[in-house]
Amino acid sequence: MKDLIILKIGGSLITYKSSKTPRVNYRNLERISREIASSFASSKFSLILIHGVGSFGHIIVHKTGIDKGIKNKRQLEYFAETQRLQNELNVIVTKDLIKAGLPAIPCQASSFAVMESGRIKKMDSSVIEGLLKIGMVPVLFGVPAFDQHQKCSILSGDQIASFLATKLNAKRIIYATDVNGVFTSDPHKNPSAKLIPRLNNKNIVQIRKWVTGSAATDVTGGMLGKVLELSKTKISSQILNGLIPGNIIKALNGEKIGTTIKPS
Amino acid sequence: MKDLIILKIGGSLITYKSSKTPRVNYRNLERISREIASSFASSKFSLILIHGVGSFGHIIVHKTGIDKGIKNKRQLEYFAETQRLQNELNVIVTKDLIKAGLPAIPCQASSFAVMESGRIKKMDSSVIEGLLKIGMVPVLFGVPAFDQHQKCSILSGDQIASFLATKLNAKRIIYATDVNGVFTSDPHKNPSAKLIPRLNNKNIVQIRKWVTGSAATDVTGGMLGKVLELSKTKISSQILNGLIPGNIIKALNGEKIGTTIKPS
Repeated sequence: MKDLIILKIGGSLITYKSSKTPRVNYRNLERISREIASSFASSKFSLILIHGVGSFGHIIVHKTGIDKGIKNKRQLEYFAETQRLQNELNVIVTKDLIKAGLPAIPCQASSFAVMESGRIKKMDSSVIEGLLKIGMVPVLFGVPAFDQHQKCSILSGDQIASFLATKLNAKRIIYATDVNGVFTSDPHKNPSAKLIPRLNNKNIVQIRKWVTGSAATDVTGGMLGKVLELSKTKISSQILNGLIPGNIIKALNGEKIGTTIKPS
Repeated sequence: MKDLIILKIGGSLITYKSSKTPRVNYRNLERISREIASSFASSKFSLILIHGVGSFGHIIVHKTGIDKGIKNKRQLEYFAETQRLQNELNVIVTKDLIKAGLPAIPCQASSFAVMESGRIKKMDSSVIEGLLKIGMVPVLFGVPAFDQHQKCSILSGDQIASFLATKLNAKRIIYATDVNGVFTSDPHKNPSAKLIPRLNNKNIVQIRKWVTGSAATDVTGGMLGKVLELSKTKISSQILNGLIPGNIIKALNGEKIGTTIKPS
């Protein structure tokens, strides 16, 4: 069995995250698709892609409050429309990935994940394992999902990444974001913020104090959420800047750029 | 628990099935969406919708042969692109359904179904059951799916319908097609074809002789395939003409139009 890499592409890379309407960043999407496809073609690893949803997700979720559960009939329609909108983005993303030559197959996680109070309660990975075995690249993404407790909650790309990494014993998780890695404070707001090149058990306990959210519009927890998700796994991970051309190829090839996280 | 109805909307209704490129029939789609939404709003049943894929599916599958399994690397990309294209159609279909007021949530069956030589081997319905319980309308559709034997096979809307009907103990299956029901021969080709108003155990054994495919372009078995799928279940079903305005409402309300199938 080939080593498995899970690559998460931030919603801030492939959409205009602060746009007031859902809007794709086609320029980034095309470049990133080419980087992933060329790296995959010449390598020996299996790959799962997970993309964030940026302006396709956060706006409608903020507006409708479905992440806090379903309280009325109208919210059932919002739940449906939110899912529909994420699939719309995924159809665009996979189009570019396939065009670049990647066998990138859409996988809607909310079709097979059952949530409980915002956390995955059950998620069968048989199909994903089967697809990996035959050489496909499953592409998952953040979704609103059925929740046993509150009817609906958000299954973020970050939670999917750490869940699948653990379940399928991934070799590495790579997070392509819009910053160079984990900083001592938000580098978009504070110019004196310092990059933390390595996180481990010792300094990860302090991370709550250091790390601020990657953007206020992020309903799924921003950078702090990512780091805390990653720290739950026992898998090496890496947070890097996907805005810089070539970085994703470097990371897939094993170069230590950005922040690397080794829990224990 | 409310009675469950499974409504299958034929690909020949919502797409131009004989178009040489994927093309949606928006006029039919909008009318049918309104019919389903108004019927659902005033009724006491649970509903699963399944739509065919018409020109979004049959063209690419014919061209690439992925329904017969994956034999080379290029076909992995076709597998991915075929799935992507079905999701593209589903995103359009659910848009109109939601616009009409239905909490119609996309469910990509190939994310949780494992096939074996073209038949469902395993398909967990937890999420669908959960969604039904909270009042959502899951919308499934024909897809290319991972196959343990041949890597890929087609999970048709017809197979999904009969599988879920049995598993979730549906009260009725309704098939909205482009003909008035099951005929003694193909009514599109033979003007003297006669409608069979009722099928049961006695005459269903003769059906192989009578029934011809609904269209030569249908890779999933046409009308014969539908009837044989339905006859495997123990559930009352009905095949009717969805091109006639009002027919879908009538069927959802329990009127016996078209051909009814009761496999005792």
